[in-house]
Amino acid sequence: MNAVQPPLEQSFSVPFTYAVHFTEHLFAPQNPLFRDYLSQPSPTGQPKRLLFVIDAGVLSAHPTLTAEVAAYVAGIPTATLVTQPMGVPGGEAAKNDPALVDQLIDAIDQYGIDRHSYVIGIGGGAVLDLVGYAAAIAHRGVRHIRIPTTVLSQNDSGVGVKNGVNYRGKKNFIGTFAPPVAVFNDAHFLTTLDERDWRAGIAEAVKVALIKDLAFFEWIEAQAEALAHRDAEAMSGLIYRCAAMHMQHISGGDPFEQGSARPLDFGHWAAHKLEYLTHFSVRHGEAVAIGIALDTVYSQLVGRISAHDAERVLHVFGQLGFDLFHPALAENNSENLRRGLTEFQEHLGGQLTITLLDALGTGIEVHEMDFELIQQAVERLESKLMYNE
Amino acid sequence: MNAVQPPLEQSFSVPFTYAVHFTEHLFAPQNPLFRDYLSQPSPTGQPKRLLFVIDAGVLSAHPTLTAEVAAYVAGIPTATLVTQPMGVPGGEAAKNDPALVDQLIDAIDQYGIDRHSYVIGIGGGAVLDLVGYAAAIAHRGVRHIRIPTTVLSQNDSGVGVKNGVNYRGKKNFIGTFAPPVAVFNDAHFLTTLDERDWRAGIAEAVKVALIKDLAFFEWIEAQAEALAHRDAEAMSGLIYRCAAMHMQHISGGDPFEQGSARPLDFGHWAAHKLEYLTHFSVRHGEAVAIGIALDTVYSQLVGRISAHDAERVLHVFGQLGFDLFHPALAENNSENLRRGLTEFQEHLGGQLTITLLDALGTGIEVHEMDFELIQQAVERLESKLMYNE
Repeated sequence: MNAVQPPLEQSFSVPFTYAVHFTEHLFAPQNPLFRDYLSQPSPTGQPKRLLFVIDAGVLSAHPTLTAEVAAYVAGIPTATLVTQPMGVPGGEAAKNDPALVDQLIDAIDQYGIDRHSYVIGIGGGAVLDLVGYAAAIAHRGVRHIRIPTTVLSQNDSGVGVKNGVNYRGKKNFIGTFAPPVAVFNDAHFLTTLDERDWRAGIAEAVKVALIKDLAFFEWIEAQAEALAHRDAEAMSGLIYRCAAMHMQHISGGDPFEQGSARPLDFGHWAAHKLEYLTHFSVRHGEAVAIGIALDTVYSQLVGRISAHDAERVLHVFGQLGFDLFHPALAENNSENLRRGLTEFQEHLGGQLTITLLDALGTGIEVHEMDFELIQQAVERLESKLMYNE
Repeated sequence: MNAVQPPLEQSFSVPFTYAVHFTEHLFAPQNPLFRDYLSQPSPTGQPKRLLFVIDAGVLSAHPTLTAEVAAYVAGIPTATLVTQPMGVPGGEAAKNDPALVDQLIDAIDQYGIDRHSYVIGIGGGAVLDLVGYAAAIAHRGVRHIRIPTTVLSQNDSGVGVKNGVNYRGKKNFIGTFAPPVAVFNDAHFLTTLDERDWRAGIAEAVKVALIKDLAFFEWIEAQAEALAHRDAEAMSGLIYRCAAMHMQHISGGDPFEQGSARPLDFGHWAAHKLEYLTHFSVRHGEAVAIGIALDTVYSQLVGRISAHDAERVLHVFGQLGFDLFHPALAENNSENLRRGLTEFQEHLGGQLTITLLDALGTGIEVHEMDFELIQQAVERLESKLMYNE
């Protein structure tokens, strides 16, 4: 029987498209952008059903937002709110409580959100990760719009294709790859960020510049003081360029990460561990800055970049106001970091793959790291002797 | 600021490939198929890590299977079992208990299954749906191999791209589209199926033949007695052709169902409702046969096919041993069915889309159904006057 039944070979590609829009005051009555996006009548002629989920931190900084959203949607003949916008806790708490996933799934069920409806998340990266995950698994995926409100989510996580929640303390252990149908970056939300969140998101832009684009890194150097003083135009330019590079990386590579290489994870192996060790009191972008500093010094120690180049990286982080050392890095003779490297490999699976710098603007993948040199790099960051201002 | 920042447009396609293999006694020592599949060394040089999850019903019909799997994998230098195969309840129970999802996620965590490892499900469609779902969300997706053991899963669900579990009583409310990396159809498992499971899976083959391929329908008519008497060769031919058509439908259409049309759902709107009404005592394939019979008679009542053609369909189901009526269909003046139609529309979202027959071998989509004619169709099935043998 077997001989006459050759294997059936399946092969197909699934296309995905979405646009990332840039605006200010998305829900101001005179702003047509969101209304226009929803203006196509649905095939059934029924108004499109919208379920908004909003970061509690955003709601407290923008107490009139719920009313603005309701009034704005009331003015769209082709759309309707299925219920008042739901609030969820912001920050990593959004991803640590499985009950929140159930709460969103229940709302999708209760309010009749189907594959032609929209779940719309407004918030920082953690809230968008939670909302995107619930939207991805309900009905095997309902339409999902992201409205990122932080620098980090507007230039990086919010414009990409991943979602996820933590599971029994393991970061992003559960999640999917599920592109949004649209992203709206509203610069007004950035004005109410605290100092730390304003700064933290810049780290991802430094990262992508360092591994891909020297000219962008030089632009960041030139704008560092303006960025540190909350210049809106500089930030707008930074977010646009970083988001574009992040999106190009996704579409030009391996969008659903079926292989092992993840060059955008430059600086992230130590960052992930540091976030955990500090129970997320060090925020993601802050940890990424430290991770980049560490792998930059390491790149110098293995002879890939000059001391001068390494100093330029540390200097720009200094101008931006980042701390480049945390005591948890050095604890237990850096044993924490050794474990962090192992965990990073396990999460990605397969061969260890770490991105280092081969030059400013040029990343390079390596498959092993010398732990003694990592310890030396930690010591240099701790001493800050060579680099401190 | 807005004027100078046009939207960033993202566009990419994600390729998926997998093969469906046909064999007998997959884990017999002399069968090289599965060993060959895993024979490529991994990039790390480490053996590939395998986590097997097996349907309890299969384990009780094949009590030596666990030992056979262990011995077979022990003979593959490039692979290793991370633990003894795990058993999970078979049938719809697999999809009704959220604790089972957690149990699989925990095992994936505990045994270090990463994106280069394999979660391998052996069982009927429900178990494969559960295992595929856990594999799809852990680490945003680990590699997943399906070994379907029923007619239904070998010719339909197991060779496709969907997974899912039930949520608070809603069938498949939670799930994803996540293609397996390989499927192995082992005909030996079919020999231990009970009468009902042997028969039930044939309904999906009748379905795909009726809407797409008259020649295949005529082949089923010719083989009906052999199939009813458990002829292995007839069943092998039926499964191969049905699986091939199901896979062509996926790759030629809308694999992740981003649109509304689902022609393969012929007969399924009533079937889903009937399964629920009977608390799954009517199995999926049995319910599909009744749903097909209903929509076939309806197709005749609206004048799309002749009484003779409708009779051919009912006759072949009769030869195969299917019951074509269940009292739950007629309860409350068929109010159950009216609700079933609404729920079907809600699950898919958008416009109601139902497939009818425009001829034997030709489906046609319609967007409304006349409820009085549905009631008439139910009455005809109940009376069985015209068609009964």
